[in-house]
Amino acid sequence: MIDFNREEFFPIKKNFLISELSNILNKITIKQNILNDFKIQDISTPLILKNNSIVFLFSKHNIKIINPRKNILFITTHEDFINDQMNYIIVNDINQTYNIILNSIFCHDDSEDYHDEFEFINGSHISKFCYIDHESKIGKNCLIGRGVRIGKNCIIKNNVVIKNSIIKENVTICDNTTIGSTGFGFSLKNLGSNNINPQVGIVYIDNYVHIGSNCSIDRGKIDVTYIGKNTMIDNLVHIAHNVIIGNNVVIAGQTGIAGSTKLGDNVIVGGQVGITGHINVGNNVIISAKSGVTKNIKESSVVAGFPAIDIKLWKKKIIKEKYKNK
Amino acid sequence: MIDFNREEFFPIKKNFLISELSNILNKITIKQNILNDFKIQDISTPLILKNNSIVFLFSKHNIKIINPRKNILFITTHEDFINDQMNYIIVNDINQTYNIILNSIFCHDDSEDYHDEFEFINGSHISKFCYIDHESKIGKNCLIGRGVRIGKNCIIKNNVVIKNSIIKENVTICDNTTIGSTGFGFSLKNLGSNNINPQVGIVYIDNYVHIGSNCSIDRGKIDVTYIGKNTMIDNLVHIAHNVIIGNNVVIAGQTGIAGSTKLGDNVIVGGQVGITGHINVGNNVIISAKSGVTKNIKESSVVAGFPAIDIKLWKKKIIKEKYKNK
Amino acid sequence: MIDFNREEFFPIKKNFLISELSNILNKITIKQNILNDFKIQDISTPLILKNNSIVFLFSKHNIKIINPRKNILFITTHEDFINDQMNYIIVNDINQTYNIILNSIFCHDDSEDYHDEFEFINGSHISKFCYIDHESKIGKNCLIGRGVRIGKNCIIKNNVVIKNSIIKENVTICDNTTIGSTGFGFSLKNLGSNNINPQVGIVYIDNYVHIGSNCSIDRGKIDVTYIGKNTMIDNLVHIAHNVIIGNNVVIAGQTGIAGSTKLGDNVIVGGQVGITGHINVGNNVIISAKSGVTKNIKESSVVAGFPAIDIKLWKKKIIKEKYKNK
Repeated sequence: MIDFNREEFFPIKKNFLISELSNILNKITIKQNILNDFKIQDISTPLILKNNSIVFLFSKHNIKIINPRKNILFITTHEDFINDQMNYIIVNDINQTYNIILNSIFCHDDSEDYHDEFEFINGSHISKFCYIDHESKIGKNCLIGRGVRIGKNCIIKNNVVIKNSIIKENVTICDNTTIGSTGFGFSLKNLGSNNINPQVGIVYIDNYVHIGSNCSIDRGKIDVTYIGKNTMIDNLVHIAHNVIIGNNVVIAGQTGIAGSTKLGDNVIVGGQVGITGHINVGNNVIISAKSGVTKNIKESSVVAGFPAIDIKLWKKKIIKEKYKNK
Repeated sequence: MIDFNREEFFPIKKNFLISELSNILNKITIKQNILNDFKIQDISTPLILKNNSIVFLFSKHNIKIINPRKNILFITTHEDFINDQMNYIIVNDINQTYNIILNSIFCHDDSEDYHDEFEFINGSHISKFCYIDHESKIGKNCLIGRGVRIGKNCIIKNNVVIKNSIIKENVTICDNTTIGSTGFGFSLKNLGSNNINPQVGIVYIDNYVHIGSNCSIDRGKIDVTYIGKNTMIDNLVHIAHNVIIGNNVVIAGQTGIAGSTKLGDNVIVGGQVGITGHINVGNNVIISAKSGVTKNIKESSVVAGFPAIDIKLWKKKIIKEKYKNK
Repeated sequence: MIDFNREEFFPIKKNFLISELSNILNKITIKQNILNDFKIQDISTPLILKNNSIVFLFSKHNIKIINPRKNILFITTHEDFINDQMNYIIVNDINQTYNIILNSIFCHDDSEDYHDEFEFINGSHISKFCYIDHESKIGKNCLIGRGVRIGKNCIIKNNVVIKNSIIKENVTICDNTTIGSTGFGFSLKNLGSNNINPQVGIVYIDNYVHIGSNCSIDRGKIDVTYIGKNTMIDNLVHIAHNVIIGNNVVIAGQTGIAGSTKLGDNVIVGGQVGITGHINVGNNVIISAKSGVTKNIKESSVVAGFPAIDIKLWKKKIIKEKYKNK
């Protein structure tokens, strides 16, 4: 699991004590259990619980052992997601609570108080708070935002926007692509630009990745959107928040991958494929062009169609239909 | 129906008298009926007939009562679309006539005589003829064109192009998105960049709309392309000219909506959906990801597949096919 | 077949003698036949063999007569692709050899040694090594790269990136579009940004073409990606390397055309269509929206569905399914 220093990207407005947060949530709290009052330094997820952090339990997780020295505040809707050895606050609407708390703690580029400072260097706007290796090249009309780190030998072409991202070495990003923009996360009960869930994760692009032109890769909500080593991404590809893509993956043009989906290593994805959210695509899978993948795919499968099925079955079906229609 | 001052976006070259226009069209006019010679100030549509305007009747409309004091010139191809109480000119090729007249009257950004003046403010090009509320934020490498109005508390991110648009309050528009560009309108008989129908409408984006990155929203041809309040639009979405989208609509990534289609309120559209032009999607409709919607959808329906059908029927069909292919 | 001066776009690092190249390839050469040692000035393809050039034979071509005065070096993997009247080098991995040689000879924008020089003119970055007719208009935040030629009366809107392209006259290119970026070509055996096949072809856009916003058109690998006269392209369209599009073609929004495919004249392509690579679509073909075209289409056909079939058969199938599911 990749870690990063959130504050480099999303400045902390205030380090709240739990007791202070508890006051803010006072009117919407159903029940609370505060064992120790500590200063919240970060947000974390059940995947990597961090000390002095706040954790939202949207569903039941297998959190067996909480190190008693770990200061963690859990926020959830269901009593059975937590136990009395935990600090917790139970609320009715966890989405609303997430928005209130995150917007109180963090600045991000969907809030009005977000701030960055730029220098206009060689035709692009470079944040004073980013790091670009001197052996990397940045084209014209780019924006490289605060906290961004770009390693050695990267080629960032023109009109590229990179925010909230760590770009390792030898990465190529082509023209008019957006990296690290806002994930499409909100409650269907509360729409509107001001109700978008604060997205305080990043994009992490590993070594030797190639990304085409006019693509859009959203940052993680809390953790990362990850693109593995040597992965090749064509033009006009959409990668949603929290997607994890393995090493040596090929993704052809106009494909879209919805939030939190995982692709293994050596996966090949044709053009105009859609992959639904929150599923797993195993290693060495091949997904034929224009497929719609709606559920987990076992490793080394070859699938086609919508909903995507084994390509042999799909071809059989197509041939059958052809006969019948003649 | 939303109104706007066209001249703020599309400067008028000359206010023609009908008699002058009649001269220009002399060689292609089949029949004409000029009751009163007035100066043409605008173009309008049967939806909202405006005084001192020119109206193209591409098909029969139910124009029963024309206020006799209203100065309107109708241009059409069919005698039965009009009557003798109307000013009219009948032509053979209404598309060609539309192009000749519109290009004579209006400047627009697909004609060479279009002109705008910019100031380079804080890394973006801002027209001297636009209005941006001081409580809104504009990122870097943006272009805000003439006539554009951006209300309070908007966040326009980076590399965004906004032309021919009214953006209300609390709207977020993410990086590399284009708002207000040219609709894809022309006659199949006369192709070529110089034969594109002049698009002299605007985009109107209502309060609290969120628009993702790398999207493209075309302006109306004569009236508006409208995005209703609280509507949430993901990345790489294509919205064609004259589309009307209701309030509280959700549109996921890579979806495309063709020209003049209307979506009601509270509609949810999955990713990679295509919706054909000139249809109505009722309130509270849910359109499953990767659907192709080819005809009107009744309110509160849930549809899937291509062509999109009731999702229960679609699922039945998928299960049947699965059995048969085993 | 359109010709262009490659060196204007891709500076030559060194004009190698065949004997020098042969040394570079020494360790990976299986067999070679050098009849005459000449200086390599260019790369060409079997379509138009050029004097003093290097030619990669990825498959068998019908090269009957080689003018003995033509200096050509063939590189291939199979002995039966060549004969002893040819200069040739046989290697195991032609992709790897292509990369080694092309990267030795040419600079291109995916290599770190690529260099261009810009002037910031009227809000856009204009290469000192490009030509723009003074009657053409360039918007703001554009980049026009080295070698690019833009003819009379073109309208290039804003945030457009044009590299490695020849744009003829009266062409319109809308906002946030990328022309001439890198084709998605590489060997599946060697992924990673540094293993992308050098793309040293161009995009050639003929007179009166209209291209919408947020599109991406990749340059040819060695020859051209060509868009014919009067062709109309909507928004968010993806056109891959070496695609040849005829005259008077219409391509609606979000369609993607994979590499090396040819479209005839007067073809109409609906929205969200996918067309696979290396196929031919005849003149006057109509491809219905959301189709997936997987094989050659005869001229004047009308097709729909995925895989695309005759539209009458497709409609029959849809009606049948409707009955069965009721």
